[in-house]
Amino acid sequence: MSQSRPLDVALIGAGRIGQVHAKSISANPSCRLAAVADVIVDAAGKLAAQYGAAARSVDEILADASIDALLIASSTDTHSDLIERGTAAGKAVLCEKPVDLSLERALACQRKVAGKPVMIGFNRRFDPNFAALKAAVEAGEVGKPELLSITSFDPAPPPVAYVKVSGGLFRDMMIHDFDMACWLMGGAPAKVAAAGSSLVDPEIGAAGDVDTAAVTLTWADGRLAVIKNSRRAGYGYDQRVELLGSKGLLSARNVLENTVEKITADGASSAKPVYFFLERYMRAYEAEWSAFIDAVRAGSDFPVTLRDGVAALACAEAATRSAGSGETVALTPEMLGS
Amino acid sequence: MSQSRPLDVALIGAGRIGQVHAKSISANPSCRLAAVADVIVDAAGKLAAQYGAAARSVDEILADASIDALLIASSTDTHSDLIERGTAAGKAVLCEKPVDLSLERALACQRKVAGKPVMIGFNRRFDPNFAALKAAVEAGEVGKPELLSITSFDPAPPPVAYVKVSGGLFRDMMIHDFDMACWLMGGAPAKVAAAGSSLVDPEIGAAGDVDTAAVTLTWADGRLAVIKNSRRAGYGYDQRVELLGSKGLLSARNVLENTVEKITADGASSAKPVYFFLERYMRAYEAEWSAFIDAVRAGSDFPVTLRDGVAALACAEAATRSAGSGETVALTPEMLGS
Amino acid sequence: MSQSRPLDVALIGAGRIGQVHAKSISANPSCRLAAVADVIVDAAGKLAAQYGAAARSVDEILADASIDALLIASSTDTHSDLIERGTAAGKAVLCEKPVDLSLERALACQRKVAGKPVMIGFNRRFDPNFAALKAAVEAGEVGKPELLSITSFDPAPPPVAYVKVSGGLFRDMMIHDFDMACWLMGGAPAKVAAAGSSLVDPEIGAAGDVDTAAVTLTWADGRLAVIKNSRRAGYGYDQRVELLGSKGLLSARNVLENTVEKITADGASSAKPVYFFLERYMRAYEAEWSAFIDAVRAGSDFPVTLRDGVAALACAEAATRSAGSGETVALTPEMLGS
Amino acid sequence: MSQSRPLDVALIGAGRIGQVHAKSISANPSCRLAAVADVIVDAAGKLAAQYGAAARSVDEILADASIDALLIASSTDTHSDLIERGTAAGKAVLCEKPVDLSLERALACQRKVAGKPVMIGFNRRFDPNFAALKAAVEAGEVGKPELLSITSFDPAPPPVAYVKVSGGLFRDMMIHDFDMACWLMGGAPAKVAAAGSSLVDPEIGAAGDVDTAAVTLTWADGRLAVIKNSRRAGYGYDQRVELLGSKGLLSARNVLENTVEKITADGASSAKPVYFFLERYMRAYEAEWSAFIDAVRAGSDFPVTLRDGVAALACAEAATRSAGSGETVALTPEMLGS
Repeated sequence: MSQSRPLDVALIGAGRIGQVHAKSISANPSCRLAAVADVIVDAAGKLAAQYGAAARSVDEILADASIDALLIASSTDTHSDLIERGTAAGKAVLCEKPVDLSLERALACQRKVAGKPVMIGFNRRFDPNFAALKAAVEAGEVGKPELLSITSFDPAPPPVAYVKVSGGLFRDMMIHDFDMACWLMGGAPAKVAAAGSSLVDPEIGAAGDVDTAAVTLTWADGRLAVIKNSRRAGYGYDQRVELLGSKGLLSARNVLENTVEKITADGASSAKPVYFFLERYMRAYEAEWSAFIDAVRAGSDFPVTLRDGVAALACAEAATRSAGSGETVALTPEMLGS
Repeated sequence: MSQSRPLDVALIGAGRIGQVHAKSISANPSCRLAAVADVIVDAAGKLAAQYGAAARSVDEILADASIDALLIASSTDTHSDLIERGTAAGKAVLCEKPVDLSLERALACQRKVAGKPVMIGFNRRFDPNFAALKAAVEAGEVGKPELLSITSFDPAPPPVAYVKVSGGLFRDMMIHDFDMACWLMGGAPAKVAAAGSSLVDPEIGAAGDVDTAAVTLTWADGRLAVIKNSRRAGYGYDQRVELLGSKGLLSARNVLENTVEKITADGASSAKPVYFFLERYMRAYEAEWSAFIDAVRAGSDFPVTLRDGVAALACAEAATRSAGSGETVALTPEMLGS
Repeated sequence: MSQSRPLDVALIGAGRIGQVHAKSISANPSCRLAAVADVIVDAAGKLAAQYGAAARSVDEILADASIDALLIASSTDTHSDLIERGTAAGKAVLCEKPVDLSLERALACQRKVAGKPVMIGFNRRFDPNFAALKAAVEAGEVGKPELLSITSFDPAPPPVAYVKVSGGLFRDMMIHDFDMACWLMGGAPAKVAAAGSSLVDPEIGAAGDVDTAAVTLTWADGRLAVIKNSRRAGYGYDQRVELLGSKGLLSARNVLENTVEKITADGASSAKPVYFFLERYMRAYEAEWSAFIDAVRAGSDFPVTLRDGVAALACAEAATRSAGSGETVALTPEMLGS
Repeated sequence: MSQSRPLDVALIGAGRIGQVHAKSISANPSCRLAAVADVIVDAAGKLAAQYGAAARSVDEILADASIDALLIASSTDTHSDLIERGTAAGKAVLCEKPVDLSLERALACQRKVAGKPVMIGFNRRFDPNFAALKAAVEAGEVGKPELLSITSFDPAPPPVAYVKVSGGLFRDMMIHDFDMACWLMGGAPAKVAAAGSSLVDPEIGAAGDVDTAAVTLTWADGRLAVIKNSRRAGYGYDQRVELLGSKGLLSARNVLENTVEKITADGASSAKPVYFFLERYMRAYEAEWSAFIDAVRAGSDFPVTLRDGVAALACAEAATRSAGSGETVALTPEMLGS
């Protein structure tokens, strides 16, 4: 693949997250947004026009040899197919999480595209705060990791209609935290134990999902991680990580709206965490995209692989089963595709 | 019981925690330390002399009608017996946690002394920070509690000889956190799921115990709590609580050695948490003792009951079983003595 | 001036701060960078090429009726002349601080361009943290302002060659803080008392300047402000504001490099403040430029006026004299051009 | 003086601060409170009774050879006389600040008791936070001190009747901060420049005093300190120190009521600083008294001397004059008694 000219990129999916990615693509001088596709043709047209790109069908994009890379930001049920078709057409692929709602389908995809250039969009790894924490872990600043804790609360629950097609909290929301845990602890856990409840919105419970959950992961060597999720923090986007190692504790606190503090007779007050993922992770999306483009141009390995996407999904699958049965569920080699 | 003169108190147990209590007793103007007993007679004598009290045997103390109250700080295996004998002798009793290592024995004790004045020494409830958090919960400042998180790390593991007789991490160390969870969430949970590992000291694992653990509690109405324990934080005593409610988040941070901060080219630094329980909880022990004495003098209910001691022990029993089997364990009415 | 098409902007000055402004101009969809001028023709050419603008002389720019606005980022000794020539040519002007090193020259400029559209580039007013603090002051959240404190430390001193032509610390560096003080307290002070020393670099002292200074401002109604400056903080860019009002205290803390914290047996550590003004104030420069463009298009008043630039310079003039004499210096109406 | 038995102490002054000291004296096992004197005989009697001491006149105390030490906590106008009479009677003396409202009288006292055992009660040096900051300075953790900043706000102004006899804010309140500055910077400054206003209570202004003030101190080698005082912070006792050195910044933050934090849709909130000096400095008073007793018993130098008391008073004298004239006032050797 040519390294001397900007890469031509096609974006598949012009919804909310597609718009976020369009911004990152256009801000990166090493590539240009050439085409946008969406099942809603008007949406593709509007987004394409905004960035001087062409609105095209997926078939046209795959058939066009001048398109170097695909960014797949369409609905989850299209991910596996598009990964397979895109790589078959010789394109480098960055696909949004999750790979699929079905672990089996994701595993089949993994087998099919083995060796092809596919990166999965776990954006949090590229947040500067989490990246700094990971660097400190790698540098051994707190010794050997022993007990990880991830807090991940959304500000407000999604519509129940979304919940019904989401695959459930563990596959839709906690999937990010499973990836963070695997990334920070260095590989997939051996066991998953989950507890979940519907406390925020009874309709979420009626739809068979949970909105509040706690999951414990155990690695083969006994190391532990705890993940807490809630669909409704009320005060904003609560995204924290804390890792106890043999020599100390590392933590990444929330990003606040500003640094102003006030003290009066009523008490001391300060700003809330930024409201949601766009405010918190815009820089992470940009860094994620840069990492993808840089790896494509250099022909080097991607920092997040399809295997990582499968591992997070296997954790989600195990957590979903554990939350139902109350039993700890082992992650088998088959579930991890290894 | 007379309310006009200071109460005469006998302290049973002159070890480390007994010495802490002797200080609290002598600092409280509503009582005086009259007698000290210990199986090591010299230890009793030395501590008694320090506070102008008499060193006496347990039998002498129980037979002495002028002793109003007992503070039981002897070894755990004596707690149930002394609670029963002390209340039978007409004395008000404050007994250190846990009630017993055996849930059955504790339940038998509970049945035997029903209606008698017994308080259990869960000192953390009296820490000013946790008390302020509890008050905010009660005032509804974050709405309905939904997801509690307790972090409780010791600075360094105890000797393995101690571990072997301790009853295990869940009964010996996490018992405090089980009580905190029951207290903050308003009653005992319905289910307990535990995971534990020996990561800190292989000898602890060889002794059949764990030194790092994560436990999830689920209440009958679906509310959740997560407790994390480690025997070795390295940097001091890490004692934090965080509660997500329907309207927001409450947290109690660590108490630091001082308020000094430094920023240089090497980074920003500040003081560590205070080192261990004496530094952190001395004020809590004093407040605990005051609450006991005030209730005895007023004839009012104790803020921590034997039932609370049993509930925490039942959680510990369930956690121990769950950590072994990998299955979630239900807390039955029988386990709670109700 | 047309409000329906993007404004054509000429940038005068292609040095470090000019490059910062070029970025802001090009990021703003309501304007476009049409021309760049610099006494170093190659520098103008390079910067112009980067943004698709033309490199032109100042004379050409002023003669070109299609240029709507000037951003003056050339050396300080050219500011007054360019403000006068630019406004005479019918252009809206945003000029970097200070207006001039000479208060007399700045006052003459102010008289000459009275009523013309000139904004001075005090970027800190547009920092989101300081803006949030100002909004809280305006909302009366801490009552009536009484005692303001501004801490403003650079990470490292500039070269002595720069110091020699800078006009001195009070005109070159503290000018920002004088503007912040006038802005937050609502107008210029009545009196200025300054103390300054050369502690960081003896060559700065040999050049007749100070590198460490403390200034007290007193308003006519007795309200007070204290400004502290150092040319060398070592740990980064220390930019804090603290305001005591009749009902409480507002403060704006530093912006840190990341949110990661670490605790080990050696202590707790966290990230440093971001290193210098580009890291700290890039968003402020963008917001400043947006405010300028929005006001030009709307025909509304600028948020920072030439009068504000003169007031800050008058404070700097008074501080320079006070630091020399040890006497408090009054700000006369003549010094403020009012 | 005997080192083998507890020292017999007489407390002169049974008012608010005398009561604080009585507590410290009685808590220290190396001394006992033998006598209390007060011009209000009932007050002396009541306090003496509380601690099992005798209420006696000053004359009786001075004539009693069994009294080893005096703690002078009577009104300021009696300090110098009592220091002179106490030392003449062979007693070790700890005297509350200030030595006197008159610098001349304090200097005369200093000459008269030269070589005698007199310690001045600047309690803040014994605050564990400030002591930790001082230790870090001494250890060179931020290099050479360059720019000190002290913030010292009371929660609420005293009655005007008190203000009228107080000697004014500089002698009564800022005297503590002058001592802190001399202590942290290593000796008295060369110059003092002060600005003060009456913003809090017009009656304070009508009484000729200020309630809000900013003072700049300059040492002979150019190092600087800024002190800010307000009689009314509203939110509690604001007591902070910040020191910029050649290698970084040290700061001591406030002590808060508790460690609880809350985040809701309305923002994040936390506890206020503790309300006033008793809450903040009780441990400092105890440590101050211990340091005095330890030095008396060891025959070693006191950590705070009469010379220190005079230096702080000289700063207050200079500040009072500077605030009146607007001119910087030099501290002469005569003013420092050296």
